[in-house]
Amino acid sequence: MAAMRCNAAAVVVAPAVAVREAKVVSRVVVPGVGLGKFVGLRGAGLRGEVAVRAVERRAAGVVTKAAASSSVETLEKTDLAVLEKSVNTIRFLAIDAVEKANSGHPGLPMGCAPMGHILYDEVMKYNPKNPYWFNRDRFVLSAGHGCMLQYALLHLAGYDSVQTEDLKQFRQWGSRTPGHPENFETPGVEVTTGPLGQGIANAVGLAVAEANLAARFNKPDAKIVDHYTYCILGDGCNMEGISNEAASLAGHWGLGKLICFYDDNHISIDGDTEIAFTESVDKRFDALGWHTIWVQNGNNDYDAIRAAIEEAKSVTDKPTMIKVTTTIGFGSPNKANSYAVHGAALGTKEVDATRANLDWNYEPFFVPEEVKSHWSKHIDLGAKLESDWDASLEEYSQKYPEEAAEFKQLISLELPENWASSLPEFTPADAGDATRNLSQRCLNALARTLPGLIGGSADLASSNMTLMKMFGDFQKNTPGERNVRFGVREQAMGAICNGILLHRSGLIPYCATFFIFTDYLRAAMRISALSEAGVIYVMTHDSIGLGEDGPTHQPIEHLASFRAMPQMLMFRPADGNETSGAYKVAVLNRTVPSTLALSRQKLPNLEGTSIDNVALGGYTLSCNATDNKPDLILLATGSELEIAAKAAELIRAEGKTVRVVSFVCWELYEQQSAEYKESVLPKAVTARVSIEAGSTFGWERYVGLKGKAIGVDHFGASAPANILYKEFGLTVENLVAKSKEVMA
Amino acid sequence: MAAMRCNAAAVVVAPAVAVREAKVVSRVVVPGVGLGKFVGLRGAGLRGEVAVRAVERRAAGVVTKAAASSSVETLEKTDLAVLEKSVNTIRFLAIDAVEKANSGHPGLPMGCAPMGHILYDEVMKYNPKNPYWFNRDRFVLSAGHGCMLQYALLHLAGYDSVQTEDLKQFRQWGSRTPGHPENFETPGVEVTTGPLGQGIANAVGLAVAEANLAARFNKPDAKIVDHYTYCILGDGCNMEGISNEAASLAGHWGLGKLICFYDDNHISIDGDTEIAFTESVDKRFDALGWHTIWVQNGNNDYDAIRAAIEEAKSVTDKPTMIKVTTTIGFGSPNKANSYAVHGAALGTKEVDATRANLDWNYEPFFVPEEVKSHWSKHIDLGAKLESDWDASLEEYSQKYPEEAAEFKQLISLELPENWASSLPEFTPADAGDATRNLSQRCLNALARTLPGLIGGSADLASSNMTLMKMFGDFQKNTPGERNVRFGVREQAMGAICNGILLHRSGLIPYCATFFIFTDYLRAAMRISALSEAGVIYVMTHDSIGLGEDGPTHQPIEHLASFRAMPQMLMFRPADGNETSGAYKVAVLNRTVPSTLALSRQKLPNLEGTSIDNVALGGYTLSCNATDNKPDLILLATGSELEIAAKAAELIRAEGKTVRVVSFVCWELYEQQSAEYKESVLPKAVTARVSIEAGSTFGWERYVGLKGKAIGVDHFGASAPANILYKEFGLTVENLVAKSKEVMA
Repeated sequence: MAAMRCNAAAVVVAPAVAVREAKVVSRVVVPGVGLGKFVGLRGAGLRGEVAVRAVERRAAGVVTKAAASSSVETLEKTDLAVLEKSVNTIRFLAIDAVEKANSGHPGLPMGCAPMGHILYDEVMKYNPKNPYWFNRDRFVLSAGHGCMLQYALLHLAGYDSVQTEDLKQFRQWGSRTPGHPENFETPGVEVTTGPLGQGIANAVGLAVAEANLAARFNKPDAKIVDHYTYCILGDGCNMEGISNEAASLAGHWGLGKLICFYDDNHISIDGDTEIAFTESVDKRFDALGWHTIWVQNGNNDYDAIRAAIEEAKSVTDKPTMIKVTTTIGFGSPNKANSYAVHGAALGTKEVDATRANLDWNYEPFFVPEEVKSHWSKHIDLGAKLESDWDASLEEYSQKYPEEAAEFKQLISLELPENWASSLPEFTPADAGDATRNLSQRCLNALARTLPGLIGGSADLASSNMTLMKMFGDFQKNTPGERNVRFGVREQAMGAICNGILLHRSGLIPYCATFFIFTDYLRAAMRISALSEAGVIYVMTHDSIGLGEDGPTHQPIEHLASFRAMPQMLMFRPADGNETSGAYKVAVLNRTVPSTLALSRQKLPNLEGTSIDNVALGGYTLSCNATDNKPDLILLATGSELEIAAKAAELIRAEGKTVRVVSFVCWELYEQQSAEYKESVLPKAVTARVSIEAGSTFGWERYVGLKGKAIGVDHFGASAPANILYKEFGLTVENLVAKSKEVMA
Repeated sequence: MAAMRCNAAAVVVAPAVAVREAKVVSRVVVPGVGLGKFVGLRGAGLRGEVAVRAVERRAAGVVTKAAASSSVETLEKTDLAVLEKSVNTIRFLAIDAVEKANSGHPGLPMGCAPMGHILYDEVMKYNPKNPYWFNRDRFVLSAGHGCMLQYALLHLAGYDSVQTEDLKQFRQWGSRTPGHPENFETPGVEVTTGPLGQGIANAVGLAVAEANLAARFNKPDAKIVDHYTYCILGDGCNMEGISNEAASLAGHWGLGKLICFYDDNHISIDGDTEIAFTESVDKRFDALGWHTIWVQNGNNDYDAIRAAIEEAKSVTDKPTMIKVTTTIGFGSPNKANSYAVHGAALGTKEVDATRANLDWNYEPFFVPEEVKSHWSKHIDLGAKLESDWDASLEEYSQKYPEEAAEFKQLISLELPENWASSLPEFTPADAGDATRNLSQRCLNALARTLPGLIGGSADLASSNMTLMKMFGDFQKNTPGERNVRFGVREQAMGAICNGILLHRSGLIPYCATFFIFTDYLRAAMRISALSEAGVIYVMTHDSIGLGEDGPTHQPIEHLASFRAMPQMLMFRPADGNETSGAYKVAVLNRTVPSTLALSRQKLPNLEGTSIDNVALGGYTLSCNATDNKPDLILLATGSELEIAAKAAELIRAEGKTVRVVSFVCWELYEQQSAEYKESVLPKAVTARVSIEAGSTFGWERYVGLKGKAIGVDHFGASAPANILYKEFGLTVENLVAKSKEVMA
């Protein structure tokens, strides 16, 4: 399929510029204040205690060197002097990039640089020269505005995607360092974050993917799937409801390899979190079934961070939340610990003061030699990690050829041969059915041919018809199963599916709820579209056709709202063939999400539909004109295609030529050639009427100003569906009447 | 303004039918099984303990009479025999209505009937003959699918809105008993629920309204504002992220008069909550700063329910969550405690079995005389409550005439005289500004003339420009202030504003975030529209014009998606006058919500705009044709109106006649007469070009198939705004070029 992403927004790959020679900045460094004042941490307490939020913690403190605390054996510690230099390098790369762009968020990278260093330098397994190496640890910056932290780390780690020139192009047109982390722009970035709370839910999805694949493919003597998922989230993420949904599921599933860092800096855009966020986050995560740890001094106590990670890894049956108390904008003498450093450049004066305060006598974007040299090991280390893993996989392939074949098929990201042949085909002689039931047949057919298929519903499995009967539930003790029970957590469901897909291991996540509840899911669905994650959204009860539940449950504007969304395929199939066809396109599109709007009510199999026609988006279902000039064109989707077909018969009986067009997916139709479009909707024929049980908004594109659109431009009502169709004029009679008006 | 609600969906008021004479059902009642088997509670434990979720609790138990536990002095207890009959009346009204409709959710009403009875019969203050009496206690059924519980209670309590005939019309066309509670259909229902989690957030909003008004108007000797807000929510509500957001705020604000009941029945649609919901809800609420209580037997232990309410009332500085463990579908021998009873009619056989099991020898919809007689007191009691309050208010008015005048003005729901005169007006000579800043001027002007204005931002006050400078923050210790700090909780923010508005006390809530984050808010915004709640949504950073934050933060499809939503006014003002005009219409519309999309970037004040023109929705900004046949019509909104004005000048300079039309609010334009529309967009002129920094979806309505729409039909990018405008073709040059094409 043609790429849907607009060329105008395409990435301009920055030339690989060599790191410039270092030059010491000539700015005045005031002697003696190199370790000078900055805003310190609030008073320490015991792990898990509710911290006293004293005004005093705003008071200025003094930079103290990290105490040489007990060693952490399994982690490779960095020499302290180099470590501190590395941490300050991260801070200043962020400061300098934001300053040059005069836009961005320096506060988080300055506060989180210590944990960032430890993660990328001491803890995480990755191969910078192959950002997509399968068995890498995944990292998600849920607090995406702090993306300069991640860019700085990717840069130091040796990723080609973030070179010095890229850092200098932070937030500029065509750069690989956009204002929030975008997986489709920057290899090394796993998911797209920014809208708060999405990232932690993505991280849950990444950990789900790992748990599922590990359970399916690992053997007692061969752990070919074995990585951690790390995530940094902030106060904002923790305030968002989606993070609670995702965390509740992660606790329920016991995702022991998910390790999150809560950047507890007590500052959000509006100021101290005291004004709106005084809950006990650790107690909440305890209640959600997480292991919780508190690092009281995230600014300097490197060993405490290391020990926390060690402890987190030792807890294998629960995800871990490490609350790391940090100072936002650490090192800035006048702006640290204030909202001023959250989302704006420090300004020349404060940048100078921060350089002086942290004894950083280098020009902007400079990486000291010892830091460069220290990090350079990751090139070889990464290559070795990957080659060792390749060897393990080879050994595995020898021992377990069948499993290996399936595993390799999955991670190739290619679909298996003939996968689509399992999709059911129908003729008008086949009994009619609700498209939600037909969807179930498709899912169960695909479950047999697509080893990557995994998904479920937000507590509506029996209404959405989304269970794969051959599998059990993905649960704590059965993580290899593939029916996912999301509970009533639509937001997290979407974002978790984004994470599962962007694990890039061939998993094909689908998720389901009533179409109306895309109102909860929408932020995640948009990120599917933006981040090129081909999640399949199975959205049933797609119109007033759901009947008695009433207007709170009846989608009206939803089709239009997704048709307007870029990079989203919005399907509304009319019968069995169109449902199968929608699945076929959806599965093929691994970088474009699809939404299927499916009926609650039974629909007949129509003459003229086919699986392949769906790929055209809009096509002629029937036409009794011998030329391309019918007297009338009727346009419809989904459950109203039957009405259009019946109306056409009646009007044809009166001697008119009528074409019926199914508009199952507008986005696909828009991609067709002008010739094809003319063959379906000839410009000369202006007598056109559309019918769809939803808002008419947007239908003018196809019916024109001389046509008519029958739809529902008001909220629905609680009553049996057939009554609603009649009361709202979604009838053959009304369509015939309107058709006569436009032909008059 | 004309009512926007579609006639087709309007309420058909059911005739007030007298309650039918009782007849004993002739079905066979098996002797001795009247107190027979049903599915019982799981084993009891200590309050606050994590309950053991044993399979055993599925086992059948035996109905036990409520133990005569310690009396609760301040509550008026119902005689036990009557109480049990009343509780069973509630159960069977629900069973019978669902059975007759063959659609609905009997499980919750059967399980929650005891707490429902105690609330409406023993605890709550209300006047059934005036459902809008100001000082009533508010009740929200957040688990809205269980609406038959509420209808049964309203019926017993004597509300005119729910008579026997209404119960029989449950879920039917035109009835007052729709499938979920709808405040606009059924007086006595405070808010519209159904989408899970919304109701608890509405309840928080109702409690905010009470707290704010109490702080502003009560005197040591006169508590004229003094009521509780009660809410029943279920497992589903507690899984939804929005409920955690709202609960975190309620805890933060210490809303002591908010008392919630968590119907802990362990069943959701997909089965036992064990499959997806194993967190400790009470511990989570503890962490959120709530007082928590556990009633271990919500089926029979009436005194425990009473004692819990008593205890909740005694805790005045925290909201209370009473976990009430119940059996879903209590009384149904074969379906209780299973998902089968959640959302479907029991079926004749099981209805009969339940009647036998609960010894209910009555025909459907029957209310026994002693129950009727017991509840009949509420007519007089309610009248007395209201008249006592009226007397208090009169006394208050004598003592505090100024406060009383403002209070009465507020609760009259009329706007004060001349309120709109404070809105700023502009001429092109005035310095340009971002419409978000102009919005701030409007809000601060209105703060002086509208005593009901209250609102804030989801942690973006300094970006959304929403602080009212004359007020402090609404906080636990300063509840009389009017700047609300919602934290990063967009979903709850919207739903809380719905609650504040539907308190029906003249408060005018507004709330703010970036326009993109309407993706989080959307479910609440839709309920504003549906439930006739004129909330004002202040949505800044309305396009790619926000620049560097990039595509995760740049709205594209959002204007279209709200234009497609019924009963929502979507404004995109272009300058100072249009911003003032948008506020004027928004404030006037107390039953239709408004969304204002506002620019981050500075815009000039244009020639031709005015405050009053905004009410037309679309109007001619300028035209150099002497007749109604310009060569070209340019259509634009917001920040692109300036581009259209400039392009028009250039094209006019080449001798053409050009009309520029501002389309600030499509919904208002659609309400104008055909003559007016023809005067703005004459059919004969097909050379039309629109320009708007968003999806072109829908613009065909105004530009037609021969016109062109310039917009952004792909995701944005991270770069300075002026670069994006250029790269994406939102320029005077491109508009001139496209205009020449359509004129050719």
